[in-house]
Amino acid sequence: MTGAYDLLLAHVREAHLLASTAALLAWDQETGMPTGAGDVRARQLELLARLQHERSTDPRVGDWLSSCEADAALLADADAAANVRELRRDHTRATRLPAALVAELAATESRAQQAWAGARAASDFAAFRPWLERMVALQQQKADCLRAADQTRWDALADLYEPGMRADDLRRVFTPLRERLVALRQRLAGGRAPDPAFARRRIDESRQEAFVRAVAAAMGFDFTRGRLDRSAHPFCTSTGGDVRLTTRFHRDNVLDALGSTMHETGHGLYEQGLEVRHLGTPLGEPVSLGIHESQSRLWENHVGRSLDFWQWCWPVAQQHLGDACDGHSAAGVFGAANRVQPSLIRVEADEATYDLHVMVRFELEQELLTGDLPLADLPARWNVLYRDYLGVAVPDDRRGCLQDVHWSCGLFGYFPTYTLGNLYAAQFAAAADRALGGLAPLLRRGEFTPLREWLREHVHRHGRRFPPAELVRRASGAALSATAFLGYLERKLGEVYGL
Amino acid sequence: MTGAYDLLLAHVREAHLLASTAALLAWDQETGMPTGAGDVRARQLELLARLQHERSTDPRVGDWLSSCEADAALLADADAAANVRELRRDHTRATRLPAALVAELAATESRAQQAWAGARAASDFAAFRPWLERMVALQQQKADCLRAADQTRWDALADLYEPGMRADDLRRVFTPLRERLVALRQRLAGGRAPDPAFARRRIDESRQEAFVRAVAAAMGFDFTRGRLDRSAHPFCTSTGGDVRLTTRFHRDNVLDALGSTMHETGHGLYEQGLEVRHLGTPLGEPVSLGIHESQSRLWENHVGRSLDFWQWCWPVAQQHLGDACDGHSAAGVFGAANRVQPSLIRVEADEATYDLHVMVRFELEQELLTGDLPLADLPARWNVLYRDYLGVAVPDDRRGCLQDVHWSCGLFGYFPTYTLGNLYAAQFAAAADRALGGLAPLLRRGEFTPLREWLREHVHRHGRRFPPAELVRRASGAALSATAFLGYLERKLGEVYGL
Repeated sequence: MTGAYDLLLAHVREAHLLASTAALLAWDQETGMPTGAGDVRARQLELLARLQHERSTDPRVGDWLSSCEADAALLADADAAANVRELRRDHTRATRLPAALVAELAATESRAQQAWAGARAASDFAAFRPWLERMVALQQQKADCLRAADQTRWDALADLYEPGMRADDLRRVFTPLRERLVALRQRLAGGRAPDPAFARRRIDESRQEAFVRAVAAAMGFDFTRGRLDRSAHPFCTSTGGDVRLTTRFHRDNVLDALGSTMHETGHGLYEQGLEVRHLGTPLGEPVSLGIHESQSRLWENHVGRSLDFWQWCWPVAQQHLGDACDGHSAAGVFGAANRVQPSLIRVEADEATYDLHVMVRFELEQELLTGDLPLADLPARWNVLYRDYLGVAVPDDRRGCLQDVHWSCGLFGYFPTYTLGNLYAAQFAAAADRALGGLAPLLRRGEFTPLREWLREHVHRHGRRFPPAELVRRASGAALSATAFLGYLERKLGEVYGL
Repeated sequence: MTGAYDLLLAHVREAHLLASTAALLAWDQETGMPTGAGDVRARQLELLARLQHERSTDPRVGDWLSSCEADAALLADADAAANVRELRRDHTRATRLPAALVAELAATESRAQQAWAGARAASDFAAFRPWLERMVALQQQKADCLRAADQTRWDALADLYEPGMRADDLRRVFTPLRERLVALRQRLAGGRAPDPAFARRRIDESRQEAFVRAVAAAMGFDFTRGRLDRSAHPFCTSTGGDVRLTTRFHRDNVLDALGSTMHETGHGLYEQGLEVRHLGTPLGEPVSLGIHESQSRLWENHVGRSLDFWQWCWPVAQQHLGDACDGHSAAGVFGAANRVQPSLIRVEADEATYDLHVMVRFELEQELLTGDLPLADLPARWNVLYRDYLGVAVPDDRRGCLQDVHWSCGLFGYFPTYTLGNLYAAQFAAAADRALGGLAPLLRRGEFTPLREWLREHVHRHGRRFPPAELVRRASGAALSATAFLGYLERKLGEVYGL
């Protein structure tokens, strides 16, 4: 019955070509498309989405899968067994959602986003509330279609982004993590804050660009299979044959450009490390958003915010940034890159407070989905959690519960993958440090190849071969835990703040 | 039965979304795609071509067309009648080509293009020959599928680009044209050649780019619905919602960048002048390549190589190009822009010898398709025709038969549309000159709107409403002829060369 397997793979590879085509259209839309092309682009993307959906719900897929699942000889092959397992997962998910619900979600997301944009501009939660109410109700319906008997609604949604993730498991790790991070934040407030001056130097964008390109190349990003461009919000996407990164430049914040670039390059190295021969099948796909984020955060933080890295990087910075470096030093920039300043939004957060933003959302989403939190109480509850966790006063809903697009886009159960990325990154960095006899001397010499190859060997090349929890255990030798992350963070920030 | 017409239009609009998606992928491939993405891009384009082919050969299209053709009330509407007529033409053409051949052509074209690039760089015809052999065989198969009883293979392919074009008809116009052009070339060799110094000034690419963007904007190219980028070979393509132009820059040839840009902008104005309400239907599509080329050549030559244009453009050039303009003048640059110098490649050709390059290809293509010319003899035969028509010696195949991408792209029967463009352009320019009471004073003042609007009114907005020959008669008042072109060219070059 390998005939069924071959037909199945040809079918999903074709669906993947449509998906990667859509990715290129979306990349173009964000990087260079003239504004007047928006309507036609939306129609092109809508058509590609429909063609993909037709393929993923094609009844032949279920028949081919059943044939494969009954074929012991086929399943003796580990690659085939993993692909069949993951394609069954995808097909079940695709066929459990009624077409009418999918259409209603798409329509509501589109309208809710417009309503959100208006409500945010006016800081008017009441204007967005009916849309959020509708969105929560639809997400509840979606979760009810998807969930297994032992999953909560939130679990069923989170499983879309991080297979196997459950709120109860996360809570066991997140609650003590939150308490330690709040305590760390409070301790740092009494420490010696590093000088942020270098981060605020005015530097031409063309110089910044040459600098961040040099760093991305040093990290091993393959520019014969990738590009780096600009967009309002940095992102990384695969177009099938190559990987497109974007970054952004502010004239007075070169560290933002560097951090964004190293972050997206970390994502890009994961995409480039997937095996080309498996392209378009589960074995050639990233396994979860948490694992993806671990790759970006490892390079952004464990590498890019370390003193060892800056000892290599400082002459590179001097070469590209010129006299903006005068009067600064590697040690000083290391400090500036690690300044902690609790803020109102995750995308501007430092490493110490980043996960506290995630904790707020983790609590609120579950309360919204169970119905325990009446929507009218959301803004006040948001503000209380920001005060308790981050120690900041939210001045208005625009900078509070209306701050970003996740909920109006229907992304419930998505936020914790950001924290999983941080925890996994610390576990992987510690394991690579042990395996390579210490990362520090390698980073000091700008020798990034051993780390990149370790990640490729233990994470990238597996694609979806193992569920995320198993991949983490295999690569790091331990189950998900905050120990490595907290040890790394408290040690580094303790040094920076002289505690 | 308008139900059938509505279904038909919805169907072809969807096919057009696939075609415009493919156009964006192709644009990306030429402007920025990393080399390593070539294989996957070929597969994406192959899939999109197959999906388009499925739609264009869908048996329902034939049924809908038959219903429409039997619906007198529908056909009383001129728009519907034209769309039905042209969609029947498309459907007949599409259903004659087997899906396997279409897919093989798409894949071979993408890969042959990459092989050609390598062979050209190495001036290695032998490396490209197997690809060209495969391509000629596929084109012969394609022609045999398409041709009517009274068409040659070449006619059948040429009809794809210029509906109704036949080699015998062209030969009646082209043979005397070629004789007059060879005679003109020989006369000019005894004239007073203008000073080319300005064309050879070294000018930074960024200054050149600012200059050509200013000219494209002055011509009325709408940058909210278009872009201008760089590529090795300048081109213009529509992605559905916007129009993408490319140009190229040589540090020591600003007139090449300007000519390429005005040429592609002429194409772009045609695309932007099509009626948006007809997008995705024949009435919203360019009618032929010859007409398309007439728009580019009219702006490039009748405008951009006129003394009147340079009287407006010279201060614009001075503003952007700075001291490179010192010691030159509008009249001098007009001369430099009209210098005749027989060369090795059409894209660098002056107006007097341009069509002689076309005549070479016109002969060779017919010989390749009939099989009269063995591929091994192609380089030598190419070189003989270049000597006879253009009076130049071809030093190597890189500058000879490997010089450009047309054949690796499968574009056989395409080249004569370049000469048709020159002939139509002269006919349209003469008609606009009469209608607007003289173009010269408008160009001298940089008032391009009346000419652009005349072209929009008489050419662009019609889309495929009239066959090309009828469109030319309606717009210019005469059938295809070389009279206007030769009159214009001999007059202008006679002045420049003091004959």
